[in-house]
Amino acid sequence: MTSASVSDELTAAIRTIPDYPRKGILFRDITTLLGNAKAFRQAVDALVQPWAGSKIDQIVGIEARGFILGGAVAHQLSAGFVPIRKAGKLPYETVSASYSLEYGLDEIEIHKDAIQPGQKVILVDDLIATGGTAEAAINLLRSVGADIVAACFIIDLPDLGGRKKIEALGVPVRTLVEFEGH
Amino acid sequence: MTSASVSDELTAAIRTIPDYPRKGILFRDITTLLGNAKAFRQAVDALVQPWAGSKIDQIVGIEARGFILGGAVAHQLSAGFVPIRKAGKLPYETVSASYSLEYGLDEIEIHKDAIQPGQKVILVDDLIATGGTAEAAINLLRSVGADIVAACFIIDLPDLGGRKKIEALGVPVRTLVEFEGH
Repeated sequence: MTSASVSDELTAAIRTIPDYPRKGILFRDITTLLGNAKAFRQAVDALVQPWAGSKIDQIVGIEARGFILGGAVAHQLSAGFVPIRKAGKLPYETVSASYSLEYGLDEIEIHKDAIQPGQKVILVDDLIATGGTAEAAINLLRSVGADIVAACFIIDLPDLGGRKKIEALGVPVRTLVEFEGH
Repeated sequence: MTSASVSDELTAAIRTIPDYPRKGILFRDITTLLGNAKAFRQAVDALVQPWAGSKIDQIVGIEARGFILGGAVAHQLSAGFVPIRKAGKLPYETVSASYSLEYGLDEIEIHKDAIQPGQKVILVDDLIATGGTAEAAINLLRSVGADIVAACFIIDLPDLGGRKKIEALGVPVRTLVEFEGH
């Protein structure tokens, strides 16, 4: 758990944009948090504080906002960084996983040699909603032999059930702030 | 300048993929460098070593690989992070700039309130080739009042002229390794 004061400061640093990307949605915009040097540093440090003394081999970030956080977290923990990208973006041999979106399917990929079997990894993204992307990422990581220590997100939208979905896969979930609704 | 030994180690950590994305191109794949914890840390630290003691307000990263490096560099310098994204990806009001690709045009955007006028920023991306994207990013940053301290890239492809193009705009360029050709 994170201290209430850090959660409050991070919550205040996130901008809410009404009716984006469509009417009725309150979009949680973390660019205002990222652009606030103090809040960005607090978020990165708090996100992986439980593993500050541990040996983590790789931080895995999901394109695109997960790259920003993941790069910072990898630097904080002196770990490597492995990208999970949309299909067709990685230049070497990949393994891929599909997942459902509200309309249709999407596909993500990882380089097949990005993780050595047994390496300890932490998955990082900005937000967990339904957990569909994170679930697909966990399937990918397990298919290449990763030991997934945790999945970390700045924002949890608990009403959408993603945290429970990921925990049911046996992966501990850490989040810093919560918003009701979607 | 970077020490020859660091350049050599970073060069060795970059994978070259022949004929990607098309025949005759030697693609420089930095994912192998990012996934090597020691090389990733060396690259981040060396990239912004000249500004280690300075007050830099914002690190600006270009989507998508520039996000990984930019997040890490922002953490290293205790700065904020500002994303420059492909058109249509940022949720708030933006300013945009177009630039030429080999075939056609592309467009990038920044939130119009992402930079306070006069803030000191460093632009970060993985590679500079012709410099078209970096030039468009510099135009965007100047349009919102940024004081651009430098543009930093891990890889320079000097035969493509990007460094000279950016230096001619009055922005110092820092790179860590060079490859001939494209």
